[in-house]
Amino acid sequence: MKFATFKANGTATWGIIDGEDAVDLGTVLRDRYPDLKSAITSNALHEAAEQAGDAKQYPLSRIEWLPVIPNPDKILCVGLNYEMHRKETGRAEVDNPTIFTRFANSQTGHLAKIVRPRVSHELDFEGELAIIIGKPGRYISKADAWGHIAGYACYNDGSVRDFQRHTHQFTPGKNFPDTGAFGPWMMTPEELGELGPLRIQTRVNGQVVQDATFEQMIFDIPRIIEYCSSFTRLEPGDVIATGTPGGVGAKRTPPLWLKPGDTVEVEIDRLGTLRNGIADEV
Amino acid sequence: MKFATFKANGTATWGIIDGEDAVDLGTVLRDRYPDLKSAITSNALHEAAEQAGDAKQYPLSRIEWLPVIPNPDKILCVGLNYEMHRKETGRAEVDNPTIFTRFANSQTGHLAKIVRPRVSHELDFEGELAIIIGKPGRYISKADAWGHIAGYACYNDGSVRDFQRHTHQFTPGKNFPDTGAFGPWMMTPEELGELGPLRIQTRVNGQVVQDATFEQMIFDIPRIIEYCSSFTRLEPGDVIATGTPGGVGAKRTPPLWLKPGDTVEVEIDRLGTLRNGIADEV
Repeated sequence: MKFATFKANGTATWGIIDGEDAVDLGTVLRDRYPDLKSAITSNALHEAAEQAGDAKQYPLSRIEWLPVIPNPDKILCVGLNYEMHRKETGRAEVDNPTIFTRFANSQTGHLAKIVRPRVSHELDFEGELAIIIGKPGRYISKADAWGHIAGYACYNDGSVRDFQRHTHQFTPGKNFPDTGAFGPWMMTPEELGELGPLRIQTRVNGQVVQDATFEQMIFDIPRIIEYCSSFTRLEPGDVIATGTPGGVGAKRTPPLWLKPGDTVEVEIDRLGTLRNGIADEV
Repeated sequence: MKFATFKANGTATWGIIDGEDAVDLGTVLRDRYPDLKSAITSNALHEAAEQAGDAKQYPLSRIEWLPVIPNPDKILCVGLNYEMHRKETGRAEVDNPTIFTRFANSQTGHLAKIVRPRVSHELDFEGELAIIIGKPGRYISKADAWGHIAGYACYNDGSVRDFQRHTHQFTPGKNFPDTGAFGPWMMTPEELGELGPLRIQTRVNGQVVQDATFEQMIFDIPRIIEYCSSFTRLEPGDVIATGTPGGVGAKRTPPLWLKPGDTVEVEIDRLGTLRNGIADEV
């Protein structure tokens, strides 16, 4: 199944994406599950889906997509998790995943504009697979990790490179408002199936700029969940962006910065395509 | 005035600290301001204080202190903001503040135990001044920065050093549960007065291990607020930990790691003393 957060008739809600329709479960279930995170927290996605018959449907063309989880407790991001990207950035090999964070207010939805801030023109793309945590936990073993995942989504970890390089900590360059695109929807693990062979591709104005399969990750998903849960308790709705393949704009000659009018897409086999235009901050 | 978040009779509330008493404003005002963050957001601290006559009082010995803001939208931390600490860590001079983040669930309150995790014994102290944001803003100028501050508190940015050094990103070492002590209270700027000459001192089992004045900050408070608000919108209740002076345990010979039974204090002139014991994770 595919679950999403969106606005229908101007009101934020959440529901199932069924073919070309969005099924508004949030309005039917608002007393119990006002948002997708609360339904995940209550392990109630399947129960919620059974209410679809009573819910209003909207053609996808009439909804406004919001970040899949607009209000996660935590957004953890893995840096340098594909060999080609590690090498293009000149970073040494390490024994543990590189973890930085985004704030929830840096996110945006499918088809919304990614915003180039007025203080920098070094806006870059990073196509990624995002994990949405379903079951809470601390010290989760690799063997148990798969059972803690509620779903997967496309993520564009939009980065402002000069701010990212101001110091050795990435925080400033990774937290500009409306730079972290997350969507269109979350797909449940049973629908997505085996991850490893799936391809992730990022395109700018239709041109392929990143292209990899998840088998190429340096730290696989069980290891990422094991490591993150060793230093923090993972909660339902937490988001882990699992890192970007090689080919980022900053490491091209000349650099390929995103600019107003561009379109950037992150496509993951079977999962879907996240598409965003670029606009200058107003 | 001094405001705090605490448990009274087992229930979380907030209020004013008046001498040896905690005045429970949260119970009186729960419909409008259920927590200290909501009162700050509504710019209602003075209005709230006027309700003190109707509020129940508790001797400080009967309350359980919680983090001053248990639920901030964002916790931004400045690294390497005192010259002696920059030099002891061997880091280069930079033109902008070094910013990393903590999650809210890594915090703990005054007199609570800071927890040494089972996966590391390299638990270190970092005494700091914390700013609590009062007025929201983006692109805040240095001249306007002071007007965005609701108050100040002591912070112990407890750090797990081996996890901090796993990669070049600090996140893992800065986010273990119950390592970021924040309290006892927040003092309003008009009560604290001029910051520069004030002394911050960290003590372990009574021995002074860090000792500086705020005039020694590399990036002063207006510059920190200007910089942070250039890449993210600051919200009421956001916390900025402004960095630690030299003398951390990791850079001593031999290293001074915190261990069960130790007591660590962060004292700031006029503001107060944050005191925590250390306990092993259970």
